[in-house]
Amino acid sequence: MLRYFVVFYVLFGSLFVEGMWLAQPGPKYPPTKGEVWPKPQIEVKEKTFYIFNPSQFKVKILDQTCAILTDAIARYSYIIENKLGAKTRDIEPLTLLSLSTNNDTYFKGHLNELQITLTSPCEEYPYLDMDESYNLTVSSSAKLISSSIWGAVRGLETFAQLFYLSDDRNEIQVNETVIFDFPRYKHRGLLLDTSRHFITLPNILKTLDAMAMNKMNVFHWHIVDDQSFPYQSERFPELSERGAYDPSMIYTKADIERVIEHARNRGIRVIPEFDVPGHTGSWGNAYGGMLTECYENGQVIGFGPMDPTRNTTYKLLRDLFKEVQNLFPDTYFHVGGDEVELECWRSNPKLIEYMKVNNLTASDLHALFMRNVIPLLAKTTMPIVWQEVYDEGVSLSRVTLVQVWKYNWITEMINVLRTGHRVLFSSSWYLDALGSEWKDYYAADPRQMVFDVTGNETLLADIVGGEACMWGEMADDRNVINRVWPRASAVAERLWSYQDSMRRYKLSRAPSEAYHRIEEHACRMIRRGIDAQPPSGPGFCVV
Amino acid sequence: MLRYFVVFYVLFGSLFVEGMWLAQPGPKYPPTKGEVWPKPQIEVKEKTFYIFNPSQFKVKILDQTCAILTDAIARYSYIIENKLGAKTRDIEPLTLLSLSTNNDTYFKGHLNELQITLTSPCEEYPYLDMDESYNLTVSSSAKLISSSIWGAVRGLETFAQLFYLSDDRNEIQVNETVIFDFPRYKHRGLLLDTSRHFITLPNILKTLDAMAMNKMNVFHWHIVDDQSFPYQSERFPELSERGAYDPSMIYTKADIERVIEHARNRGIRVIPEFDVPGHTGSWGNAYGGMLTECYENGQVIGFGPMDPTRNTTYKLLRDLFKEVQNLFPDTYFHVGGDEVELECWRSNPKLIEYMKVNNLTASDLHALFMRNVIPLLAKTTMPIVWQEVYDEGVSLSRVTLVQVWKYNWITEMINVLRTGHRVLFSSSWYLDALGSEWKDYYAADPRQMVFDVTGNETLLADIVGGEACMWGEMADDRNVINRVWPRASAVAERLWSYQDSMRRYKLSRAPSEAYHRIEEHACRMIRRGIDAQPPSGPGFCVV
Repeated sequence: MLRYFVVFYVLFGSLFVEGMWLAQPGPKYPPTKGEVWPKPQIEVKEKTFYIFNPSQFKVKILDQTCAILTDAIARYSYIIENKLGAKTRDIEPLTLLSLSTNNDTYFKGHLNELQITLTSPCEEYPYLDMDESYNLTVSSSAKLISSSIWGAVRGLETFAQLFYLSDDRNEIQVNETVIFDFPRYKHRGLLLDTSRHFITLPNILKTLDAMAMNKMNVFHWHIVDDQSFPYQSERFPELSERGAYDPSMIYTKADIERVIEHARNRGIRVIPEFDVPGHTGSWGNAYGGMLTECYENGQVIGFGPMDPTRNTTYKLLRDLFKEVQNLFPDTYFHVGGDEVELECWRSNPKLIEYMKVNNLTASDLHALFMRNVIPLLAKTTMPIVWQEVYDEGVSLSRVTLVQVWKYNWITEMINVLRTGHRVLFSSSWYLDALGSEWKDYYAADPRQMVFDVTGNETLLADIVGGEACMWGEMADDRNVINRVWPRASAVAERLWSYQDSMRRYKLSRAPSEAYHRIEEHACRMIRRGIDAQPPSGPGFCVV
Repeated sequence: MLRYFVVFYVLFGSLFVEGMWLAQPGPKYPPTKGEVWPKPQIEVKEKTFYIFNPSQFKVKILDQTCAILTDAIARYSYIIENKLGAKTRDIEPLTLLSLSTNNDTYFKGHLNELQITLTSPCEEYPYLDMDESYNLTVSSSAKLISSSIWGAVRGLETFAQLFYLSDDRNEIQVNETVIFDFPRYKHRGLLLDTSRHFITLPNILKTLDAMAMNKMNVFHWHIVDDQSFPYQSERFPELSERGAYDPSMIYTKADIERVIEHARNRGIRVIPEFDVPGHTGSWGNAYGGMLTECYENGQVIGFGPMDPTRNTTYKLLRDLFKEVQNLFPDTYFHVGGDEVELECWRSNPKLIEYMKVNNLTASDLHALFMRNVIPLLAKTTMPIVWQEVYDEGVSLSRVTLVQVWKYNWITEMINVLRTGHRVLFSSSWYLDALGSEWKDYYAADPRQMVFDVTGNETLLADIVGGEACMWGEMADDRNVINRVWPRASAVAERLWSYQDSMRRYKLSRAPSEAYHRIEEHACRMIRRGIDAQPPSGPGFCVV
C-alpha cells in the first residue's frame, strides 16, 4: 500500500500539453525533501546521506555558549526527532525490514554529533546590524560555526530543515551538505495589526515561531489603531480600559515582556508602533480632547486625527513613549504618521484660525506635528515613519527609516534614497490583499526595482529591508496564521536569499524549484504547529 | 470599565462624510443581539423581553416525538445555556447589583417553558420535498409548532438564535417574538471537495453543524477527483489503497455512516458525487486501463478521461454505484460529467477510429458515456449532473437536476427550464474565489435573474435551489472552516429567506441590517466552535 503511494506521488504532477489539461493524481507540486526555506546563499548537497538516531546523537558546544544557544539546541533537537511527520512505525508494525536503507549506495552511516563553535560571547538582544551568518557542514560529525549567537540560531534552524523521513517513512535522514549562509537584507519584518482584531498571545508567539522558521528578524507590532487600544499602559490605564474592545482583549506588561523574550530567543526584534496623529480614534475613548472635532456646515460630525496644537497631547505622548521605550528594548520605534485626514483639520474652526495666523497649510500641520513628536523619543531611539512623513517635508535625521507602502513605490524609494535616508519596503507585500499568492509577493524585490530604473548599485545598500504587512481588517485570531503563512514566506526568502547580479535578472519570478520547496516548507510549518494554508494547489501533508 | 465599553460600542461605527474618512473606535458593524440568520419569513419582535434561567426552564413535548427531536432539544438547551459568550459573573465578582434588569420597563419575567407540538410522526431521513416550516412564539410559555420533524429542528435553531446576553452580560435574555418561517428554495446546499485536499472527519462534522446553523439542507460531497480517491470501497479497495493521498487519508464505511447520521439528525441530506468520465485521474492509480491514453505526435503524453468504449469500466461503475447507493440513503446521486478533456479523446488512435466508424464527434462520445452511465443507477435514484451533460444533448429524464456552474448562467438556466428540467444554481457561489466576500454571494438570486430576463414566474419553481461550492485547491483541513464561513451564510440566507415580489427588486443587494446581523451570526458560529472569519472588517467576538 505504502509502496504505491510513494511511487505515484513522486512521479506525477499536473500537465498542460498542447491544449490538453491533464490533471494527474497526486499533489500539484510534490514537495522536496530536506530543502531549506529561505534558500541558503551557498549550499552544496550530496546524494550521500546519514541516518539520525536520537540515542546515537550528541550536540557538543565547543566554544562560547549561553541560554539562548542551549534553549535553541533543545528546541531543535525536539523538532528533528518529533516533527518530521508520522513515521510508519508509529502507524503500523515494522514488518518490511527489507526496505532498510542500510543497503542504499548513498547511505554513509549514522549522524553522530553536531559540534557548535560560537566564537564570540552571546549578545543579549538582536539589532539591525547584528551578524546572522553561519557555516554548516553535515557529515557524520556535523559542524556549525558562527561568530554570533544570532548566526548560530539561524544555523540551527537550517540544520533542522535538512532532515526528512526516508521513502518508507521509517528513518530520519539528512544529506551530506555544506552551507555558507547570511542574509541579503538586514531588516526582514512582519507587521501584525492587533487593533482591527485582537490577536491572543498564543497566536503572537506562534507567529514568532513561524518567523524564526523563515529567518525573519523583525516583529513590527502595530499594536493600536482607530478601532481599539489593547496596549495596557501603567501611566495611562484609561487608554485600554476605555479603548480596548473588551477587558479580556488587552496586552499587559507581562504579556509584552513574554513576547519580547520569546522573540529575543529566536533572534527577532520587536518594534512597537504607536501610530500618530492619524489612526488614533480609540485613544479618544479615554482622552476625547486629544482628537480634532471635524465639522460640516458648522456642526461637529465626528472625530479626526489628534489636534496638533494642544500641548497636553505632546506631554501625554512623551510620557507614554517613555514607558513604551522602557518596555521594548529595541532602539527603533515606529511613530506612524500615515493617512492623516487633513480634511478634518481643514474643517475645524480653531485649526483654520491657527493655520491662518501661522500661515500654514494642513499638510504643514502634519509636518509640525511630526517635528514635535519625533524629539519626544529618547535620544538613542531611532524613529521609523510611514512614507507620508517624508513626503510632507518633515526634516528627518539620517538614521530615520522611511517605510514605503503606497503606489509609485519605485519613484518614492529613489527619492528617499537620494536625500540620504534609508528605506523599508512594504508596498508589494500587503498580506491583506486576499487574492495575492506567495508567488506574487515573491516577484517583488525593492533593490532590483530601484536598480532597474537607476542602474545605480550604490544606492541599494540603504534599502535595509522590508516588511510583509498583515493589516487586521479581515484577519482575526482564528485565521491570522493561515492568512500570513506561507504567503509571508515568499517575502522572507526574497529578503534573505541570494540574488544573482542585479544586471542579470529583470524580473524576480519564483523559480520552479521554489514551488516544490515551499510545499515542503508549508508542511514543515504545519508539523510544528503553524497552520499554514496550501501554497499553490492540491496536495497533502502527513502530520 | 465595562460601562464605557458598552456605550462606545453601541454608539460608534465608521463614517464617510463629505470626503472625510472618520474611522471611529469599535467594530465597523456592531453586531445585533438575538437576530436570526437566515432571516425568518415573518418575524414580529417586541421590545419586551424575558430572562432565561436554566433552573426555571423546561421543555415540554406535547405531541409526537423521536430521538431526532430529543437530541436536538438537548443540543440547543446546552447552546442557550453555554454558548452566548462569557458572562460577566464568569470573569469578575458580581458587584454592580444596581444594573439588574428587573427594573427595566421592558422586562416581563422569566421564560418558563418551551412547548413543542410536532403534529406528525418523525420521518427517518430528510429529502428534497420535506416540510421545513415551523411556527414559533416566544412568551413566558414559548410555543414551537411544526407538522414535520425537520421544521421542528429548524425551529429549535431559530429559538436558540433569539437568545442573547444583557448589556451587562450577566443575564440571558430573549425578546417576545412571533415567527412563521419556511424556506424559499428546497435545495440549499454546500459542496465540499475532499479530493484536492483531504478533510478530516471532525471538520466535516463541524461543517454539518455550521450548515444546520444556517438552515442549509444538502451536503454535496464531492468525495473523489483527479488528485485523490479517499472513498474506501469494499468492493474495490484498490481505489483508495492506490488512489488516496495517504493511507491515513481515507473515508471508511463507518466514517461515512457517521457523517450521514450526524447530518440526518440536523435535517441535512448527504449527496455523494462520483464525477465521471473526467476528473478521474486518481481512479487510474488502481485501474489505469479505465483512463484514455492521450497522444501527441504518436507518443502517449498522459492520461485523460475514462475511455467511453470499454465495457469493463461500466461494469465497475455499476458495482461501485450500487455499493455507494446502499451506503447513502438519499434518492439523489451526482454523476458529475463536467470538464471532460475532449482533446484527449480526439488524440487517441483507438477512439479516433471508433468515432470514425460510428460517425461520432468527441462531444457525442461524452453524451454516449453519460447515456450509458445514468442507467447504471438504481431505478429509484434521481441523477444530478453538471450542466455540460445537458449542454451536450444527453437526453435526461425530467427528474434530473442540472447543476449550472459556468458563465452565461442566466441563458443556461432559461434553456434548462424551458426544456422541462430542473435547475441547481452555483455559478455565482464559488467559495474558492478568495477575493469574493459574503455580500457578493448575497447579491446573486437565480430566480430573480431568470425573472428579470423572462418576466415569467411560472418557470421559477423549477429552480429548486443552489449550492455554495468549496473546491479544495486552496482549502485544506486547516483553513476550510474559515474559507466557507461566514461566506456561505450569504448563500444560505439567499436560499432560505423571503424575497419580496420578483417585480419589485432588480438587484438583491444585502440590506444594511444584514451587515450587523451577520456579525452576530459569525460570532455565534465561533462560540459554537465554528471558526468563522471576520465578515466585513474590524470587530471582535467575546467567546
